[in-house]
Amino acid sequence: MKDVTNARVVIVGAGFGGLRVAHRLRGAPVRVTVIDRHNYHTFIPLLYQVATAGLEPEEIAQPVRRILRDAANSRFRLATVTAVDLKRRLVISDGDSLTYDYLVLAAGSVTNFFGMESVAGATSALRELDDAESLRDRVLTALERAANEDDPARAAELMTIVIVGGGPTGVELAGALAELHRHALPRDFPELDLWAARIILLEAAGTLLPGMPAPMQREAKRQLLRMGVEVRLNTAVSNADEGGVTLKGGEQVAAGAIAWVAGMRASPLAEALPVERDAAGRLVVGESLQLPGYPQVYAIGDIAHVGHPNRPPHPMLAPVAIQQGNHVAANILRQIAGKAPRRFHYRDRGTMVTIGRSAAVARIYGLSLSGFVAWVIWLTVHLVWLIGFRNRALVLVNWAWNYATYDRAVRLIRRRR
Amino acid sequence: MKDVTNARVVIVGAGFGGLRVAHRLRGAPVRVTVIDRHNYHTFIPLLYQVATAGLEPEEIAQPVRRILRDAANSRFRLATVTAVDLKRRLVISDGDSLTYDYLVLAAGSVTNFFGMESVAGATSALRELDDAESLRDRVLTALERAANEDDPARAAELMTIVIVGGGPTGVELAGALAELHRHALPRDFPELDLWAARIILLEAAGTLLPGMPAPMQREAKRQLLRMGVEVRLNTAVSNADEGGVTLKGGEQVAAGAIAWVAGMRASPLAEALPVERDAAGRLVVGESLQLPGYPQVYAIGDIAHVGHPNRPPHPMLAPVAIQQGNHVAANILRQIAGKAPRRFHYRDRGTMVTIGRSAAVARIYGLSLSGFVAWVIWLTVHLVWLIGFRNRALVLVNWAWNYATYDRAVRLIRRRR
Repeated sequence: MKDVTNARVVIVGAGFGGLRVAHRLRGAPVRVTVIDRHNYHTFIPLLYQVATAGLEPEEIAQPVRRILRDAANSRFRLATVTAVDLKRRLVISDGDSLTYDYLVLAAGSVTNFFGMESVAGATSALRELDDAESLRDRVLTALERAANEDDPARAAELMTIVIVGGGPTGVELAGALAELHRHALPRDFPELDLWAARIILLEAAGTLLPGMPAPMQREAKRQLLRMGVEVRLNTAVSNADEGGVTLKGGEQVAAGAIAWVAGMRASPLAEALPVERDAAGRLVVGESLQLPGYPQVYAIGDIAHVGHPNRPPHPMLAPVAIQQGNHVAANILRQIAGKAPRRFHYRDRGTMVTIGRSAAVARIYGLSLSGFVAWVIWLTVHLVWLIGFRNRALVLVNWAWNYATYDRAVRLIRRRR
Repeated sequence: MKDVTNARVVIVGAGFGGLRVAHRLRGAPVRVTVIDRHNYHTFIPLLYQVATAGLEPEEIAQPVRRILRDAANSRFRLATVTAVDLKRRLVISDGDSLTYDYLVLAAGSVTNFFGMESVAGATSALRELDDAESLRDRVLTALERAANEDDPARAAELMTIVIVGGGPTGVELAGALAELHRHALPRDFPELDLWAARIILLEAAGTLLPGMPAPMQREAKRQLLRMGVEVRLNTAVSNADEGGVTLKGGEQVAAGAIAWVAGMRASPLAEALPVERDAAGRLVVGESLQLPGYPQVYAIGDIAHVGHPNRPPHPMLAPVAIQQGNHVAANILRQIAGKAPRRFHYRDRGTMVTIGRSAAVARIYGLSLSGFVAWVIWLTVHLVWLIGFRNRALVLVNWAWNYATYDRAVRLIRRRR
């Protein structure tokens, strides 16, 4: 161990997990560097509201340097990490390299196209601010084209939106798009019959919200059907292009815009490391979140699979990353103090999914909730959880506006296709 | 004349002028189509605040369809107009064409690179939302690079911002950038001495704000110098690249970011028309704003030069476009009613330029104002003038935040270079 009072901690990724480590290490006798390829932290749980014109991209993002202001021992570096040299303890990025005494890999996950990379160009994922803007642009551009279309059948196709993936993101997106089409946009497009527009949610499994409690699954489906969303279960997609999706079995579904939220896999950074990975590309780490054979290297959040690769991993959710971030900061301080790192235990406080105006499903501390109460809890939790007073104030103004007017004001097409 | 109760009015451009025509024609016995290549109206006077991270792009934009909601006889078409066939009365756009009985050319202006088109790629203009984001990205990326730079001389170059053009936009931008560097960013970049960063405002003429009243010119210069901006008059630029600008005479000024606000010229659409244009490419129209020889075609705003090409044109400002929009709507209704169109008279109510926190210069109804009073008037006028209650509320939240905290919260780099 080098000079322990100035141990260098490098954190790769400024998501929920990485920032939590830096936050917990403030004031500690370490020098922290956070590296990310964006200069901002993205509040991913609200991306779907950017995609559906309810919030502005900048409202759910916060500059990393702003967040780190109260951690005087932290620095930020804007760079894309391309490799890690575990032997020489080097983090290599575009144009630079950094040495570390402790490394926290918190690079998160990317959209999983399941090997169908051609699909990526024809669909919009929902993982980054750009993805959300891309989906918004696609949906609105398709409607503009429909408004100029003389053939009613073709106009109906352009008004159709297909969402691939019935997990939490797909469910939230389907509900928000249904509201956009039924409430906000009809006044904008008097030439279109948007009440006839189809919103189709495709899920390969036999239920929405796979892995969540059965009452939530049933309730989510019921609420979406009531809003006019077409829910198709046991329906896998084999391909997608600008015209629509092809289902396994050959059926074609024409669409003006396609959202691809079928799953995530670990950041490609994990592939560059000479350690075991699970089926989703996650690094398999020990119960203490350390990389086997590299006790000074931790992995947390979406890039990590704790324990045996055949045991189910923790869900790719912010609360997991945050709890792991807290735990890793404590473990690093224990190591510096000459103590053994502790095992991580995830405390599952609950899950919630919002579906639309006054509609949500939740399971909190074992209690099942739905409808208005669940929706108010969802709003409150996300508002409190959002980083920054200004962001909270702006989101609140927008939510109040959206609720009072049934409007979605941010319906700008920034990049036409 | 065709069926006059259903005359087709086509308006090219959803800027201040074009939208005003549509607004004034609501309820009139005409069918109006507004065409723009964006689906939103941009509030150009506040673009510089987007470029300096004080406002979010979406806050100064409003969907055109939203604005036209209260004009039931108006339709919107998202398209880029490529040509006008004056003989056949056809507006030709990408993929479509529209016939008109009356045409209003309100396509505005574009940045003038004075033939140095290579400059366009190396600098950021300030004419569209994308321009403003590009300048914000460039300024912040240069600081991130400076923070990683070991050579202090090179870091100082990266921290330097050059603004080419000392008109209202250049003056407002210089003041806002000085505040960003002196107040908001030092806490973000403890590794940089941002108080030593140079902000250089270059103007080819012998004074800032050419064409404006002399007291405003002097006061703007005084206030900028007080804020630490380097003002260089009689200084023309001959070239610019990623490393900085070259002055006429050969001097090189290294910079991390360059803003190009040296002037505007008429939209390229004007070039496609077989009529007289002035030196800035504007269409020369008669006193009634009609195109000579084409009494059913009007041109307003930045694309129009009223009267003789050798007489000075109206300034390229929103109040001119708005007054001309009102006038053209009235003239079209007079033509439909069989009356002769009237001559346009511009009523100059004043000019104002904000320079920074509590600092502005203004001339309103002949009265010269500066400092805090001018600044409060500027804020009030721009807030009232901004379209949409929601936008006003969000801008107000941001302005209050910026004023109270000396912060500029939207410092996100959306596209790294």
